[in-house]
Amino acid sequence: MNTNSTIAAIATPPGIGAIAVIRINGPLAISICEKVFRSAKKAKRLAEQLPYTIHFGSITDRDKIIDQVLVSLFKAPNSYTGDDLVEISCHGSPYIQQRILELLIQNGAEMAQPGEFTLRAFLNGKIDLSQAEAVADLIASTGEASRRVAMNQIRGGFSSKLKELRDQLLHFISLVELELDFSEEDVEFANRNDLANLLKEIRLVIEGLIHSFRLGNVIKTGIPVAIVGKPNVGKSTLLNKLLNEERAIVSEIAGTTRDTIEDTISIGGVVFRFVDTAGIRHTTDTIESLGIERTYAKISQSLVVILLIDAREDEASIINHINEVALKLTSDQRLVVLLNKADLVDPDVINKFIQIISIKYQKSNTLSISAKHNQGISLLKNLLFEITNLGKTSSDEVIVTNARHYNSLARALDGILLVEEGLQTNLTGDLLAVDIRQVLYYLGEITGEITTDHILGSIFSKFCIGK
Amino acid sequence: MNTNSTIAAIATPPGIGAIAVIRINGPLAISICEKVFRSAKKAKRLAEQLPYTIHFGSITDRDKIIDQVLVSLFKAPNSYTGDDLVEISCHGSPYIQQRILELLIQNGAEMAQPGEFTLRAFLNGKIDLSQAEAVADLIASTGEASRRVAMNQIRGGFSSKLKELRDQLLHFISLVELELDFSEEDVEFANRNDLANLLKEIRLVIEGLIHSFRLGNVIKTGIPVAIVGKPNVGKSTLLNKLLNEERAIVSEIAGTTRDTIEDTISIGGVVFRFVDTAGIRHTTDTIESLGIERTYAKISQSLVVILLIDAREDEASIINHINEVALKLTSDQRLVVLLNKADLVDPDVINKFIQIISIKYQKSNTLSISAKHNQGISLLKNLLFEITNLGKTSSDEVIVTNARHYNSLARALDGILLVEEGLQTNLTGDLLAVDIRQVLYYLGEITGEITTDHILGSIFSKFCIGK
Repeated sequence: MNTNSTIAAIATPPGIGAIAVIRINGPLAISICEKVFRSAKKAKRLAEQLPYTIHFGSITDRDKIIDQVLVSLFKAPNSYTGDDLVEISCHGSPYIQQRILELLIQNGAEMAQPGEFTLRAFLNGKIDLSQAEAVADLIASTGEASRRVAMNQIRGGFSSKLKELRDQLLHFISLVELELDFSEEDVEFANRNDLANLLKEIRLVIEGLIHSFRLGNVIKTGIPVAIVGKPNVGKSTLLNKLLNEERAIVSEIAGTTRDTIEDTISIGGVVFRFVDTAGIRHTTDTIESLGIERTYAKISQSLVVILLIDAREDEASIINHINEVALKLTSDQRLVVLLNKADLVDPDVINKFIQIISIKYQKSNTLSISAKHNQGISLLKNLLFEITNLGKTSSDEVIVTNARHYNSLARALDGILLVEEGLQTNLTGDLLAVDIRQVLYYLGEITGEITTDHILGSIFSKFCIGK
Repeated sequence: MNTNSTIAAIATPPGIGAIAVIRINGPLAISICEKVFRSAKKAKRLAEQLPYTIHFGSITDRDKIIDQVLVSLFKAPNSYTGDDLVEISCHGSPYIQQRILELLIQNGAEMAQPGEFTLRAFLNGKIDLSQAEAVADLIASTGEASRRVAMNQIRGGFSSKLKELRDQLLHFISLVELELDFSEEDVEFANRNDLANLLKEIRLVIEGLIHSFRLGNVIKTGIPVAIVGKPNVGKSTLLNKLLNEERAIVSEIAGTTRDTIEDTISIGGVVFRFVDTAGIRHTTDTIESLGIERTYAKISQSLVVILLIDAREDEASIINHINEVALKLTSDQRLVVLLNKADLVDPDVINKFIQIISIKYQKSNTLSISAKHNQGISLLKNLLFEITNLGKTSSDEVIVTNARHYNSLARALDGILLVEEGLQTNLTGDLLAVDIRQVLYYLGEITGEITTDHILGSIFSKFCIGK
C-alpha cells in the first residue's frame, strides 16, 4: 500500500446537483491544486494560507477557465485523513466534475480507490479499524437506528473498551512469557487470580457484544418481515398501503429517492424490510403462485411474521390457519395476526375472534384491519415498532453490527474459554501463552492492531469512492 | 418574493456518496446553525468566527449527535448569494442528509425552492439575470462546448456589453423625452446623428447575437444527427459502434454514469445527439419499421444527416438514393454519405464511387466504412467534428444559447428597426420615444433590469434545488 501518493476522487454522489466536491489528498495535494487554481483575490499561495480556510477562484487548464470554485484547505495532521487534504467545491455538472478530476490527475494525482481516504486515516492513526468500518455503515445507514449505532461506533463505541482490555491482557502475557525465560525456577510473575479476573471481565464484555449482534445485524439491514396468507386475502393491498404511506411522507422531502430502498419502511427510525415481496407484487394476489415451501422459507427468514386472515372465515378455519404458521416459528420470532376485511364483519364477532386468539396464542398480537379502506394501518405500524423494541435501545448502548467483528469476537471467546480452562487445570505458562496470543490476535483484528493487506483490502473495497 | 426568509436545501446530487453538502442561507443562517452545531474545539460561537473559515464538530438534536460535520462559513455580502450562507458537509447517507435538513427546518429554516439561492444572488445584485441563467446552463452542461459558453456567460459574456449600450440608449431617451416638455419650442436635445450611430452599433451587436443562437442552441443541446438508410444496411451496428466506443472511454472514469446522456457522444468536447434512435435500436434493423415520412422527419430535425448505403449496390442505385435524401436538405444541413460493408467490395470500385459522389455532391462528404469491423469509425468521428466547425469557436466568442434571450433580442431588434425607420422619416420625438422604450424594455429583460415575478418564476423553477 502506497501511502505517499496523492489521490483524488469525486466525493459527492454521482449525477447532477447544484454543487459537487472533489477531494485531493496526500503530500502533493496542495501543490497540485496550486497548478490548476487561480485565486480570485490574487492572494497568497495556497501553501501559505491558514488551514481550515476557504478560497474563491477558478480552476484553469493552462489559461482556460474550467469552473469557478471554492477551495477548502486542510493541512496535515489536522485533516480527516491526517494528510494534506484539499476539497474543491465546483458546479455540479457531471462533465465539469470529471473535467476537474482529469485535470488533477494530469497534474500528478492518482485516481483514489474505494475507501482510500478513510484507509489513509486509519494508517495515519486518526481512527481505528472499527471506526473506519463505521464510516461506511454511517454512509449506508437508511434509518435512525442504523445511523445511531454507526455514529456510536465512530465515536469510539466498543473499540476503546476492547483496546483497554487488550492492553491489560498484553501486560499479562508479557509477564507469562517472562516466566518462560525463568522456567527452570518455577516462578509466577503473572498473578493467576488477577489473570482469571481479567479474563472474566473480557469474557463478559465479549459475550455481551456477541449477543448484541443479532440485534445489530437487523438494525443495519432492517428487520425482516414476512407477509403471509391465503390467496385473495389482501396481501398486496396491505403491502401497498404500508409502502405508499411511507412514499407520500418521503416524497415531501425533495431530492430524495426511494429507488434503492424499495419495499422497506421506516417506523420511528427503525427500518422494516419486507421479505420476498416479488411474489406478492407481481401476482396481484389473485393466483397463489407461492407454494407452501416458499411460504415457509419466507417465515424462516423473518423476525416478524404478519399472517393475514379473512375475517369472514369461521373460527375453526382461523385457528387452524394460525396453528399452521405458529408451529413454524422459533422463540425469537414474533407473530402478528391481522383479521382483514373487518369492515365486512360484525364488530362483536371480530372482538370475539381477537379474544380467542389472544388467549390461545399469548405471544402473538392480533389486530382487525381493512387494508382496502386503510383502517388499522397506523395501529399496525405502531405495533411493529413496539414489538421489535428497537426504538428503546439507549443511544449509548454498544451494539455489534459487523459480521467481521462478530467472527473475531467469537474466535476471541473460544480463546478465552481455552485460557480459563487452562488456568483451572494449571496449564503451564508456555501453553497458556499460546491461547492468550489467540485472544490478543482476534481482539486486535477488530480494532486494527492486527491487520493484513487482505483484511484491509476486503474492508475498504466495500466503501464508496471519495471516502 | 420573500428575500428575508432563511432557506435550506441539499446542494449535492441526490443519492449516496462519501459526503454531501447542505446549504442554509439568509439572515438566520448562522444563528440556526448555532442551535444544532457543536464545535469540536469548544471554540467561539460561529457568529464570532471569521468568514471563509471551516469548523469541525457535530450536528446535534437536543443532546443526540446526528453526524460529525464540517461547517463552512460565509458572511454577507461576501457569499454566493450576498446573504449569510453556511454549508454543512456531512456524511453522504440520504437518511442523514434528510435528517439534518429536517433539523434545520425545525429550527426555523424554510425549504428552498429550485434556484432560490441563485435568485437571491440576482436580487442582491451579485449577478445579473443572464449570469444566473448561465449557472443553470453550466450545471446542465454535458460537454466542453456547452461548458465553455456557459462559463463565458457567467463571467459577463454579452450582458456587460448590452448593459453599456442600454445605458447609452437610456441617456438618449431622457434627452428625447426632455424635448417633449419643450415641444412647443421645437428643440432637439438628442442629436439625431449620434442616436442613429448608437442604434446602428446596437443593431450590429444584436444581429450578431441573434445569428449566434443557432450555433448556441446546438452547443447547449447537442448537434442533432440523423442516421438514415435502407433496412439491413447496418444503421444499428453503426450507432452501437459510435456509442460503445464512447462508453468505453467514459467508464474509465469511475463514478460517472451515462444513463442520462444516452445516445449522445462527445467528440472533442462537442456533443452530438442522435435523433430518434429508438426505431433503430428496437427494430434490430431487420424490418423497416420507419416509414418514409418518419425518415423525412428525422432529416428535418437534424443538422447532420448520415446516409448509410450498402457499398455492394450499383452506381445508379447509390446515386438515386443520395439524390432522394439530398433533395430534402436545406443549405444549413450537412450530408455525410457512408459506403458501408466496404470490406466486401473491391477497393477500386469503392474509390470510383467516392469520386463520383464527391463530384456530383460537392457539399457532401463521403467515407467508406465497415461498421461491423469497426473500420472507418474514427475517421467518421473526425469528420463529424470537422464539418460542424464548433471545435474552433474561440473561447472568448460570445454566443447566445438561451431561447429567452433570443426572443428578447429579436423583439429588441424589431424595435430598433422601427426607431431607425422613424429617424429616417423624421418621426416626432414622442413617437420615437415609444419605440426606444420598447428596445430598452427587451434589452433590460435579458440582463434583468426589467423583470416580473412571472419571468423570474419561469427561469428559476428550471434550476435544481440547492442552487
